[in-house]
Amino acid sequence: MDQTVVSEIQTIVGEGNFSTNIADLYTYGFDASIHHVTPSVVVRPSSTEEVSAILKMANKYKVPVVPRGAGTGLCGGAVPLKGGIVMDLTRMNKIKEVRVPDLYCVCEAGVVYDNLQKALAPYKFTFPPTPGSAEACTIGGMVATNASGMRAVKYGGTRDYVLGLEVVLPSGEIIRVGTRTLKDASGYQLEKFFVGSEGTLGVITEVTLKVVPKPKKMAMVLAGFDSLQKAGQCVSNLIAKPLLPSAMELMDSTCIRAVNKAINAGLPDVPALCMIEVDGDPDVVAKELVEVAQVANDLGAVGLDQSDDPKQMAQWTNSRKSVMSALSRYGQGLVSVSLADDMAVPISKIPDAVMAFAEIAERNHVIVGTYGHAADGNLHTKMLLNPESKEAWKNGENAVREIFDTCVKLGGTVTGEHGVGISKAPYFQKERASALGVMKTIKRALDPNNIMNPGKQQEWEEGCIIKHLRYPCEDL
Amino acid sequence: MDQTVVSEIQTIVGEGNFSTNIADLYTYGFDASIHHVTPSVVVRPSSTEEVSAILKMANKYKVPVVPRGAGTGLCGGAVPLKGGIVMDLTRMNKIKEVRVPDLYCVCEAGVVYDNLQKALAPYKFTFPPTPGSAEACTIGGMVATNASGMRAVKYGGTRDYVLGLEVVLPSGEIIRVGTRTLKDASGYQLEKFFVGSEGTLGVITEVTLKVVPKPKKMAMVLAGFDSLQKAGQCVSNLIAKPLLPSAMELMDSTCIRAVNKAINAGLPDVPALCMIEVDGDPDVVAKELVEVAQVANDLGAVGLDQSDDPKQMAQWTNSRKSVMSALSRYGQGLVSVSLADDMAVPISKIPDAVMAFAEIAERNHVIVGTYGHAADGNLHTKMLLNPESKEAWKNGENAVREIFDTCVKLGGTVTGEHGVGISKAPYFQKERASALGVMKTIKRALDPNNIMNPGKQQEWEEGCIIKHLRYPCEDL
Repeated sequence: MDQTVVSEIQTIVGEGNFSTNIADLYTYGFDASIHHVTPSVVVRPSSTEEVSAILKMANKYKVPVVPRGAGTGLCGGAVPLKGGIVMDLTRMNKIKEVRVPDLYCVCEAGVVYDNLQKALAPYKFTFPPTPGSAEACTIGGMVATNASGMRAVKYGGTRDYVLGLEVVLPSGEIIRVGTRTLKDASGYQLEKFFVGSEGTLGVITEVTLKVVPKPKKMAMVLAGFDSLQKAGQCVSNLIAKPLLPSAMELMDSTCIRAVNKAINAGLPDVPALCMIEVDGDPDVVAKELVEVAQVANDLGAVGLDQSDDPKQMAQWTNSRKSVMSALSRYGQGLVSVSLADDMAVPISKIPDAVMAFAEIAERNHVIVGTYGHAADGNLHTKMLLNPESKEAWKNGENAVREIFDTCVKLGGTVTGEHGVGISKAPYFQKERASALGVMKTIKRALDPNNIMNPGKQQEWEEGCIIKHLRYPCEDL
Repeated sequence: MDQTVVSEIQTIVGEGNFSTNIADLYTYGFDASIHHVTPSVVVRPSSTEEVSAILKMANKYKVPVVPRGAGTGLCGGAVPLKGGIVMDLTRMNKIKEVRVPDLYCVCEAGVVYDNLQKALAPYKFTFPPTPGSAEACTIGGMVATNASGMRAVKYGGTRDYVLGLEVVLPSGEIIRVGTRTLKDASGYQLEKFFVGSEGTLGVITEVTLKVVPKPKKMAMVLAGFDSLQKAGQCVSNLIAKPLLPSAMELMDSTCIRAVNKAINAGLPDVPALCMIEVDGDPDVVAKELVEVAQVANDLGAVGLDQSDDPKQMAQWTNSRKSVMSALSRYGQGLVSVSLADDMAVPISKIPDAVMAFAEIAERNHVIVGTYGHAADGNLHTKMLLNPESKEAWKNGENAVREIFDTCVKLGGTVTGEHGVGISKAPYFQKERASALGVMKTIKRALDPNNIMNPGKQQEWEEGCIIKHLRYPCEDL
């Protein structure tokens, strides 16, 4: 990189807030995906004005800029594919306003999710999405990827809570979109449009979020089933009552065995396990618990258990949350990698999808663990493979393609809550073929020099995704 | 208009589905706003393919196209400001899918709101927004204006239920944006972006909407207060408990007197009246009714009443819904016109806003009735004026400007649920000054020939809004 760029960055943010140190650059080449590319410089701005000055400069010199929060993304959204500047926003971590009577709060982009929840807790309020990386991930990152988590069936995703944004455009211009009101009919819903943009249109520096009262009580039912169809039927039967659970987590037998082995979770060894959560008023929770247990029982559930004890519920939730790490310890020499990590299908298609995944895995000689948010149709798979084997990656890529094709055929999408980044780009382009032109047109209109996170989403041109791997294996 | 255009339209939709008859053209020059402009031709397509063919042709000849649903909009969004083609979408009225187990339905743009609710009712499901024009307005129109209504505090607006759209671009290209899944992290949230676009970017032909279980029970509390501050305090105190009512309607003394006079509503003659609705599980409703009454009582409410009798609740709701027509009968020679019709402010600013409106009205010699959705910060005013008097319109315009300035100063927006159209365009441009550039850039990128509903929203260039009046009074 041109030394001029580095010295202009130094002038903008000052010593100590940027780095060209090789160790720093290497570290900032990762997110939590399978990809890695080393940037040329890392910068850590502390204000919107600094972000603006950096973009203005980068736009002048046509240098790529990749904004990032905590780097917890699973598909390469924050990996600097074309090198250039990585912009770490975690210093912008002020909660600027908590206005509970007005049902909103205002955060800088780098505020950590758990810290926002702590600030809302005294008011008995919450921001409902529940990312898996709650203790680390940032609000800006959640907006950029439309993060959601296990309670989306009842509470929606990040997009449903974004009321307004401050965004710095590639030109350095600072704009405000949306409002601080619950209602807004003022033209194009730009604040929603930037949700999911993964840093390709500008840098989100401030977020106005709707907040809601925290449910007074929660309780859970644990239900095993002798088939994935029955687990899928269970959610359909609940919704048809109608009864909306606040969450319904599904684990297949591979995932159950992995967590039993890794953390001695003591879960029943069944083909499909569901953790069904209900929340709200204590009387309603009590009634709904009975209804949920009844629906599960009618389907022949085994190992039926229920609890409203926070400790027991945390233990169940924790065993579900341990799936990802547990899978890495499932087989000698195998690592759990994020491929096909967050497909979503219409809820009733969950059994078809999960069974198809199992068949695809077997045929392609990869081990696939499937789990996810059954009540909102969002499924995670992790693939267990030898990351040094080109053959294994090839099998993985084939399985991914078939899994994605299956989901789209079932009326679903290749990404429900993690984003497109690199890992899903070509499949995303296939799925959204009819809208790609509009996406490209808008991207080019707002970022004519293509400096913002170039090469991702609709702009990906490298075909297969087994590229720029973080593992010691050459690209496919 | 060029006869070629008309004859190409005839070829596309066939005899009987277009008109150049002067009476038809005159009729299609209106929506429910103060504006009127006569188009050159009206066309009523029956399919997406016909819409596509019409736009392709219009784009070739650079003829304006204004799509419309039922024409119930209050700010001129469907008035064909630059003439050209009005495209009536009400023939596209098929409900294509109701997939309750998957929590979505798919409608053509011209489906009437009440008809969709009728289709969902057997499943005990609902699409929660509650437009005032429920029996006539179309789903496409609701999306185009981000319509909401009185339950947005608990259930959000149309934007929160749009999962996917089919849109015909100005070029005639048909695109699909969004998904049929509850979750979607696939890049730019285009389906949300088109919400509120008021026909300026293309024609929405099909909508995939999230649906939710219908609350099992509803009940209402009626509470009078001796000041607007106390009514505002009532909603703040409820939210702080926290307790989210499903609706809280506010009426000032002008509105109360108007409906008492017009329909003999028998409402208590107080400075401020609130109708507070709670919904959900019957046990919760019973508990919340007590809490609401207690909060109102603590603030010295007068004429406190409550009911869960559907007849009584319908009567109360009806008196609130009659405000608009009742105001027109309030004073001899005065008509209630839609000026400053749907501002939104942060909820806690409701009392400040309403008191400021009263002062502004008095100073500008206009009569203003204020009512609205206090719990979500959305206020309606109607102005009573002699529509033949230029002086009266001038006073109205001055009052509007001051009302909008007040709302923006309080942290609010000029339009919460009706849209920008013509009637709010210059104030919208002032409020959203920092985002106007982005809006114009995207509009020009997607509609380079500016055929889609030209001259509205960010493109308005005529200054003052007292233009193209439907009343026998010349423009200001």
